Amino acid sequence: MPATDVNRQWIYAQRPTGAVGLEHFRLQETSIPVPGPGQALVRLRVLSVDPAQRAWMMTRTYRPQLQPGEVMAAFGIGEVMESNVPDLAPGDLVDGDLGWQDFALVTPESVRVRNKNESLEHLIGVLGITGLTAYFGLLEVGRPRPGETVVVSGAAGAVGCIAVQIARIAGCRVVAVAGGAEKCRWLTEELGVDAAVDYKAGNLREALKAACPDGIDVYFDNTGGEILEVSLSLMNAHGRVACCGAVSQYNQADWGGGPSGVPGVLVAKRIRMEGFLVMDFYKQRKAAERTLSNWIRHGQLNPCMDIVEGLENAPKALIDLLHGTNRGKMMVRIGATR
Amino acid sequence: MPATDVNRQWIYAQRPTGAVGLEHFRLQETSIPVPGPGQALVRLRVLSVDPAQRAWMMTRTYRPQLQPGEVMAAFGIGEVMESNVPDLAPGDLVDGDLGWQDFALVTPESVRVRNKNESLEHLIGVLGITGLTAYFGLLEVGRPRPGETVVVSGAAGAVGCIAVQIARIAGCRVVAVAGGAEKCRWLTEELGVDAAVDYKAGNLREALKAACPDGIDVYFDNTGGEILEVSLSLMNAHGRVACCGAVSQYNQADWGGGPSGVPGVLVAKRIRMEGFLVMDFYKQRKAAERTLSNWIRHGQLNPCMDIVEGLENAPKALIDLLHGTNRGKMMVRIGATR
Repeated sequence: MPATDVNRQWIYAQRPTGAVGLEHFRLQETSIPVPGPGQALVRLRVLSVDPAQRAWMMTRTYRPQLQPGEVMAAFGIGEVMESNVPDLAPGDLVDGDLGWQDFALVTPESVRVRNKNESLEHLIGVLGITGLTAYFGLLEVGRPRPGETVVVSGAAGAVGCIAVQIARIAGCRVVAVAGGAEKCRWLTEELGVDAAVDYKAGNLREALKAACPDGIDVYFDNTGGEILEVSLSLMNAHGRVACCGAVSQYNQADWGGGPSGVPGVLVAKRIRMEGFLVMDFYKQRKAAERTLSNWIRHGQLNPCMDIVEGLENAPKALIDLLHGTNRGKMMVRIGATR
Repeated sequence: MPATDVNRQWIYAQRPTGAVGLEHFRLQETSIPVPGPGQALVRLRVLSVDPAQRAWMMTRTYRPQLQPGEVMAAFGIGEVMESNVPDLAPGDLVDGDLGWQDFALVTPESVRVRNKNESLEHLIGVLGITGLTAYFGLLEVGRPRPGETVVVSGAAGAVGCIAVQIARIAGCRVVAVAGGAEKCRWLTEELGVDAAVDYKAGNLREALKAACPDGIDVYFDNTGGEILEVSLSLMNAHGRVACCGAVSQYNQADWGGGPSGVPGVLVAKRIRMEGFLVMDFYKQRKAAERTLSNWIRHGQLNPCMDIVEGLENAPKALIDLLHGTNRGKMMVRIGATR
């Protein structure tokens, strides 16, 4: 049974015109919903904080645009408390778009039952969308070969910190791009990248060129913008760009201009740029989760978690993420975990 | 034996800062070169006029940048007149980077022997780099499926006019983008495209959207710039962009900014953008040439030739091409052909 008698919900209050701020959300308390036929009641445990949430607020993406008045959308994992469906039993762990709230009503179609033998934080991060995005984006879209040079932008972020480690495991020279000396030191000392470039230090082109003496073969792009433009100019023939996200653009009202050199440099160097979403690799998910879990268990992969405590801090966590203050996968823990 | 006793050569005189003009070339006359050991003397018959020649003048591409004082580079086809190598016999047809001149010295490695049963104009156009670029770019990079919508920009150009026809043969809905009502009429009436959009008429986005009621699945990009940007915004999920060229950019001193929506829209729609050069498909060339030749013989493929007479008109032909006045494959015929 629920331990509290209210359901706190963060409502998406208004569409930002610039940066996301606290004023775009408002907290409301309602009663805990009662599951109807075919439904189950889930108590949220850990919320994922994702740059894509900004895009969901601004425009139609692969999901409908969020409308003011709706509970703020968020991927999360929780525990089934009551169930009126045979597929979901009390105690099951489920994930899905559960929103910024203490309790959610779900159907078997809206969630996925997860493995109780893994930690909640791993399930929402490295064994969830974040880790799988890094895994499939790097290996299936970027397709690095051992000995090649892989550059990852947003490397201290949730996806980036996993991508750099997978590239290292795959036998590549790994160059991380991140904002600030502290993040660069963390990437080099803790995550084992071969070189880290601080894009905030200026001279990005010279620094990246120096870090990639043999050019760039695979660029895993989390940012778009200037880093994409510079990376394109340093790519080798038949280079590949895995377009994972454009965090440099999410906090703008508009997409803005694209990188110089598109399409000219793509032609001259026969570069493949390819956008992807993790859901396109759904069928290969189980095997990827097993591989990632094994790497963690054997100490090859640091799950890189950045944990914020309390649902009340969800908006601030998102705002911080969009300002790039996180290191690794940011998540909001609600109440005590198992 | 040569029919004239001089070798006319167009020299690349200076690097353009803006549009290519006659002042960037100068004509000189030298004596006909004498082939040394391992060389053959080739008399030029037909020169290919290509947008890429502008890029060769401006910057390093897949070939070294042209230096002032050098014979202007050009792909061409000619006849072997004298030979000191067993692989090349008088009367053989050979093609390669033979330059803007009446006579060239070649080695067996610098040229390729072509099939004497095809016409010189077909060999330099639809059965040469132009036709193969359309063939491989559309079928191997764009990978259209029957029933899909294919958009081709620069559709009245040398590559575009072949690409639209191959897309039609492949069972696609074909939408051509070209400059001017006259070219659009030609594409619709002579080449059988389903719709033609005049990008000079304004309202490109609305016109292209109306011509593609089911969205765009494959965009064969010869232009870059605004047409690329608009096409990206109209693409369906998992759309493909075959980046063939960027003629909108060749006449600029700089590449300029790229299309808005890169990389954001690539991620949201999982679009693949891929540059290619025909030389990457070298191994598959013979089969492609046979297929194209068969389509011509059966009246399914119009070879679309735009022939300029006389080596003296080579610079003007290139300038006209860069201004988009050609319809189909522009080539310069030198002297009488067989």
